[in-house]
Amino acid sequence: MKILAILGSARKEGNTEYLLRKSLEGIDHTQIRLTDYHIEPIIDERHTEKGFFPVNDDYEKLLEVFLSHDIIIFATPVYWFGMSGQMKVFIDRWSQYMRDDRFDFKEKLAEQKAYVIVSGGADPKITALPLIQQFGYIFDFVNMSFEDYIIGNAVKPLDIIKDTPSIQKANQWRDAFSESR
Amino acid sequence: MKILAILGSARKEGNTEYLLRKSLEGIDHTQIRLTDYHIEPIIDERHTEKGFFPVNDDYEKLLEVFLSHDIIIFATPVYWFGMSGQMKVFIDRWSQYMRDDRFDFKEKLAEQKAYVIVSGGADPKITALPLIQQFGYIFDFVNMSFEDYIIGNAVKPLDIIKDTPSIQKANQWRDAFSESR
Amino acid sequence: MKILAILGSARKEGNTEYLLRKSLEGIDHTQIRLTDYHIEPIIDERHTEKGFFPVNDDYEKLLEVFLSHDIIIFATPVYWFGMSGQMKVFIDRWSQYMRDDRFDFKEKLAEQKAYVIVSGGADPKITALPLIQQFGYIFDFVNMSFEDYIIGNAVKPLDIIKDTPSIQKANQWRDAFSESR
Amino acid sequence: MKILAILGSARKEGNTEYLLRKSLEGIDHTQIRLTDYHIEPIIDERHTEKGFFPVNDDYEKLLEVFLSHDIIIFATPVYWFGMSGQMKVFIDRWSQYMRDDRFDFKEKLAEQKAYVIVSGGADPKITALPLIQQFGYIFDFVNMSFEDYIIGNAVKPLDIIKDTPSIQKANQWRDAFSESR
Repeated sequence: MKILAILGSARKEGNTEYLLRKSLEGIDHTQIRLTDYHIEPIIDERHTEKGFFPVNDDYEKLLEVFLSHDIIIFATPVYWFGMSGQMKVFIDRWSQYMRDDRFDFKEKLAEQKAYVIVSGGADPKITALPLIQQFGYIFDFVNMSFEDYIIGNAVKPLDIIKDTPSIQKANQWRDAFSESR
Repeated sequence: MKILAILGSARKEGNTEYLLRKSLEGIDHTQIRLTDYHIEPIIDERHTEKGFFPVNDDYEKLLEVFLSHDIIIFATPVYWFGMSGQMKVFIDRWSQYMRDDRFDFKEKLAEQKAYVIVSGGADPKITALPLIQQFGYIFDFVNMSFEDYIIGNAVKPLDIIKDTPSIQKANQWRDAFSESR
Repeated sequence: MKILAILGSARKEGNTEYLLRKSLEGIDHTQIRLTDYHIEPIIDERHTEKGFFPVNDDYEKLLEVFLSHDIIIFATPVYWFGMSGQMKVFIDRWSQYMRDDRFDFKEKLAEQKAYVIVSGGADPKITALPLIQQFGYIFDFVNMSFEDYIIGNAVKPLDIIKDTPSIQKANQWRDAFSESR
Repeated sequence: MKILAILGSARKEGNTEYLLRKSLEGIDHTQIRLTDYHIEPIIDERHTEKGFFPVNDDYEKLLEVFLSHDIIIFATPVYWFGMSGQMKVFIDRWSQYMRDDRFDFKEKLAEQKAYVIVSGGADPKITALPLIQQFGYIFDFVNMSFEDYIIGNAVKPLDIIKDTPSIQKANQWRDAFSESR
């Protein structure tokens, strides 16, 4: 079971990243930090005659990494009660590649297991629920199995350390990942 | 009452745009099509010593337009059960400018009225509800008054013409906008 | 197409009932006002050896009416951000009768079209969305087709008259019901 | 800190009750099993001249217990993607007593801390989220502090034993309740 963490944070060493690290401590995995790459927002050409034009960015390289892993952890801060723009731009491009014969997009995703880590302030255990529901619809649409999620409560750097239940849950994930090796 | 439409679609002449046009037919307004501008995703520097660095893109120009209007219509297709990445990137940057003394960000938004138009497929009258809830939380956070929303049911170009209730609602908005002049 | 309205209000002539009447003005239909009947809350005996015991109340009589109609309008005030207890008690008992061979429960429901009318205060166009989502899951579970919903904004008697969009939507339903005869 | 558990299950020894017991193992507390009492659904007389009539049932006795505790655990199975009818009928009656001068309803609730335990099948970690949102709105409305929730995944008796994360969370609650003595 190859594990990939996709990190959508807009700063380094944040609370989301802290939870992600806890959940993968000592576990072999790959990480993509989306801000390290150039990813263009989708231009919707689904309904044009020629379909999607090639885009000159890093997306296809990331896609190959994405499709070659079995467990995907989507980790994003809660910005404005949703996933970060960076993460959304990454997911929007799926619309392009699920129609691209060079990739077994649908087949691969249907075999993947999805985990979600989000963290934010403003009462996130309630206000992040629409975001969790959105992930639920997304994974359902592509037949990924939505295994579990963690909603961290934190705003300032390292606030998350005080959110004991979230950290305990990250530890539980790590134990489960460790056993499934 | 100056009206601004912010359009987050990734293609032209789409279903969202159709509903938007219906709701503003014969009504004086300004329109921003986000794909016409260069907008960088947020780099979160809230917690750094120096705060946010200036960003070399079109954002501040758009922000001035945004803050000088009274009624804002946020129009976005439902991509992956959320607003488009383009729209999310636009909103994420609010975090930067609500802390920027050059703009009366919070004061202005607290006086604005918000309308939302979304459209998509996959049973949107239900599956777009988390997105509507997200907009609800967003407007609540900045004290914008959330006036109303339309959820259009459409995938292919001009599907929306068959969604009579959505078009009737757009017409009702137009009548109301017209009266409030 | 036989139409049944199930009304879960706890007072007469309320706002929910007003919308319901508008939507059925001049349309032949049956109405069940739940408070007119004696309905026991479910005793869950799904997992007992003998299964469900007969319950001495009006439920089976109502069930026969319910199963003999094609279009069902569920009309309930929003009490505490959910359907009324009366309506919930009515729906909970489905768990008993979907396992009762005397009724073609699953087959009938899978052919029915569901409409929902709710009304309440406290910003219902947003705060009633979890209730709409709940109805969405319910109808999905029993394969009823969820046609449409109206969320009325009203607290005091006849407040609803000022909620023009809801009344217009009720009128649209009435026109559609009228045409489908 | 006096703890009260309100159990809305329609059978004994169910999965919800199991989680509830785990969370209170060795902790002094009071329990109300709603099915042990006679509770009438609300008759809405808010808008009548004379207001609410007295109701001849067990409600006021339960209300006194409810108002004399500091921590309230609402435990209900997920029936039809919502709280049980029994629990809803109990909560609906709040509308009557928040207007009754004999009780300090609003003052007491504003001092209480709320916990929620729900359990059900059909992918509850996602499909029970509207129910959690509903509880969020309810507690917000009466100014109760919504401390935390557990969503158990279980259908048949004792299924819950396999839901390790839920049981671990119940154990964490127990530890926290124990420390707060």
